[in-house]
Amino acid sequence: MTAYKALKEEACRQNKMIPKLGLAIFTFGNVSAFDPDKAVFAIKPSGVPYGEMTPESMVVMDLDNTVVEGSLRPSSDAKTHSALYRAFPGINGVVHTHSTCATAWAQAKRPIPILGTTHADHLACEVPCTAPMRDEMIKGDYETETGNQIIEAFRGISPQEVEMVLVACHGPFTWGKSAEKALYNSAVLEEIAKMALFSIQIDPAVTPLKQSLIDKHYQRKHGATAYYGQ
Amino acid sequence: MTAYKALKEEACRQNKMIPKLGLAIFTFGNVSAFDPDKAVFAIKPSGVPYGEMTPESMVVMDLDNTVVEGSLRPSSDAKTHSALYRAFPGINGVVHTHSTCATAWAQAKRPIPILGTTHADHLACEVPCTAPMRDEMIKGDYETETGNQIIEAFRGISPQEVEMVLVACHGPFTWGKSAEKALYNSAVLEEIAKMALFSIQIDPAVTPLKQSLIDKHYQRKHGATAYYGQ
Amino acid sequence: MTAYKALKEEACRQNKMIPKLGLAIFTFGNVSAFDPDKAVFAIKPSGVPYGEMTPESMVVMDLDNTVVEGSLRPSSDAKTHSALYRAFPGINGVVHTHSTCATAWAQAKRPIPILGTTHADHLACEVPCTAPMRDEMIKGDYETETGNQIIEAFRGISPQEVEMVLVACHGPFTWGKSAEKALYNSAVLEEIAKMALFSIQIDPAVTPLKQSLIDKHYQRKHGATAYYGQ
Amino acid sequence: MTAYKALKEEACRQNKMIPKLGLAIFTFGNVSAFDPDKAVFAIKPSGVPYGEMTPESMVVMDLDNTVVEGSLRPSSDAKTHSALYRAFPGINGVVHTHSTCATAWAQAKRPIPILGTTHADHLACEVPCTAPMRDEMIKGDYETETGNQIIEAFRGISPQEVEMVLVACHGPFTWGKSAEKALYNSAVLEEIAKMALFSIQIDPAVTPLKQSLIDKHYQRKHGATAYYGQ
Repeated sequence: MTAYKALKEEACRQNKMIPKLGLAIFTFGNVSAFDPDKAVFAIKPSGVPYGEMTPESMVVMDLDNTVVEGSLRPSSDAKTHSALYRAFPGINGVVHTHSTCATAWAQAKRPIPILGTTHADHLACEVPCTAPMRDEMIKGDYETETGNQIIEAFRGISPQEVEMVLVACHGPFTWGKSAEKALYNSAVLEEIAKMALFSIQIDPAVTPLKQSLIDKHYQRKHGATAYYGQ
Repeated sequence: MTAYKALKEEACRQNKMIPKLGLAIFTFGNVSAFDPDKAVFAIKPSGVPYGEMTPESMVVMDLDNTVVEGSLRPSSDAKTHSALYRAFPGINGVVHTHSTCATAWAQAKRPIPILGTTHADHLACEVPCTAPMRDEMIKGDYETETGNQIIEAFRGISPQEVEMVLVACHGPFTWGKSAEKALYNSAVLEEIAKMALFSIQIDPAVTPLKQSLIDKHYQRKHGATAYYGQ
Repeated sequence: MTAYKALKEEACRQNKMIPKLGLAIFTFGNVSAFDPDKAVFAIKPSGVPYGEMTPESMVVMDLDNTVVEGSLRPSSDAKTHSALYRAFPGINGVVHTHSTCATAWAQAKRPIPILGTTHADHLACEVPCTAPMRDEMIKGDYETETGNQIIEAFRGISPQEVEMVLVACHGPFTWGKSAEKALYNSAVLEEIAKMALFSIQIDPAVTPLKQSLIDKHYQRKHGATAYYGQ
Repeated sequence: MTAYKALKEEACRQNKMIPKLGLAIFTFGNVSAFDPDKAVFAIKPSGVPYGEMTPESMVVMDLDNTVVEGSLRPSSDAKTHSALYRAFPGINGVVHTHSTCATAWAQAKRPIPILGTTHADHLACEVPCTAPMRDEMIKGDYETETGNQIIEAFRGISPQEVEMVLVACHGPFTWGKSAEKALYNSAVLEEIAKMALFSIQIDPAVTPLKQSLIDKHYQRKHGATAYYGQ
């Protein structure tokens, strides 16, 4: 038990942030924290209210989806998390929420267009939306296939540069170099989704941000010569 | 008084959750808790602010709408509650709110289309909307007829599988195997209603969720081989 | 000073509810409480933040707009309040807010259509919207003329039955038999305004509530045989 | 350090108000406070969460963008602040936020039309929106050029009378005779932006406020014979 203490504490702490940031109600949503050295991740147990969660109730799994510690059933989305850890090198946290506006775009099966610098501060293209899943994927190993659907949508897109996606008809997944960063990305995505919703209401023909401005904002936070932050 | 103590405490506790979950302002809305063994339900007194409610102020009624305990007048919607308890076997809680987005759909006299998995996690079809009531029903025993209107809308729909409805021009009613579950359903309904409102703003021609995805999500939480929760 | 103590305490208490109910930010909005025996009302001082208000800072005025007690300048809208007290018998409280959705309808110069029972529980017709003021009224005694514009809009409407109005291009005024009831009406109006906004987004051609349902809901709360409340 | 103590405390206090007023999440947004006698301003350090900020962490800069006190890197938007202090006489506070509705208008590259008296109470024209920046400005000294873009948009507009602007594709900047007033303006702008968004949803052809009403409301708060406030 001692071996995964810090990982379970981190997973618990970040899961409890989901309702505090207004990203889901009741038991919706889940966060996992990954330890690359041990190749395991700690994830929320399925259907447990955020207020009742403790580090001890977290479930530790390896990348083959075998539970290595924990007495509760893991989040039903655990296999999607492991699929992303296997496919996207360097990510140490995955978050799934049903945040209202991001989910509204996912339900509309539309990527979120890049309309402003708030968006470009975090990623340099629209927020991708997967294709709807094919029936055989849905009837197969659904949660693993959800991961595959995301991976498919990232052909030609760097998951280190674009840390968020909309799963069509479902909702958002985000990730990052830590569980905390993945959660931050979920909150940013919800804000971007809300702003874009309002912008298209003001002008349904609104045009995307021009490339020079995308580059400027993305690079000043993320480029080789970034000058944002300490 | 002792006989209904637990029931009244449960009704009071769940009523007080209505404003905490943001489902109604002032005295709008009401929750009842049903005891199938005694065939009575405890319901909010009419027009009493949530902050002032106590278990003692709850009104206990039988299914013929006779008050069996309590000195206050019951919620004016009590007869709708009893109609649902009489008609829908196995439900032990009923909730009525005027939550903003669900009521907006009810005022538009539109069922809420099933657009995403958040919806399908809870029910496998659109949220039904009753027909507007006929004048003779309105002028008759209005609150009982409101129940009848709901029951009419559920011909061919299982009230154990679909635990929510919009009463046209009025607002939502939800129910469940406990008052707590009925209240949970009210909060879920409001969230589904808000997401659907935003999705049709993004794409007015948005198409419903495909059947395979509806089945998958509904079954993984509610089917014989459900694997959600503990 | 003792003579108006209770009136000033009531005015202060209700003014402080404006930000708590989310009806205005900073110093926007104002409440007055009227004493029909003394024919004076206590109103918020102009431009004082709600957090700093005390009963002592309230301004007491008679119906000729003469300050009878208080060292601060009264709300700039005080003359609108007195015009309503003079014209509408039996009202003992007036509230003006800039609540977001009610103001949005006022800015659109549109009455709020009666679309549901939440609305009909409180008034049996649309929420009236005044005509835009004529230039000579604006350049004259503006705040008194604002009252006159409201009174003009109520030709043929009972201010005892319809306790709210939108002043075109400006925002809502509400009133009632007490300051507390007037404030309640402001919160109800904002909720009605939000629901109606969302309903017309769902169906731009949404039809008003039928008369039999308007009558039923209004009468069960306000008619001779009302059975809502205790 | 003692020389700038009060200025840094004021900058810290107003920065911490940004999340309290709901104007930005995480580290988005920044406030500076200017001392006209010393010709320096104190500004938020870059990328530091609001909860962790202290007066000591504020960065003091002169109008040539030289840091005169502080060990942290200043906000990446500091040069926009200094450009505004240099160009607009009499302003002693500048605020930049990514508040949701104001940013939505900025992303739509649209000025906010003047639709009601809430707006006219604060400025007598639409909220200006800059032109999108030219590529050579973006690739040059971007943050200074952002200030220049604002200054360009204010040809013929008094920055003492209109204390807010939308930077196209980016978001709002506001200012005022103090940092507190500049922050107040940011909250007012967000409220105006939300009301206008809702008004155009109610009536896409809504017409602007008539000039006589604009003059009346602006003058009663700001004119030579103003009678609002104490």
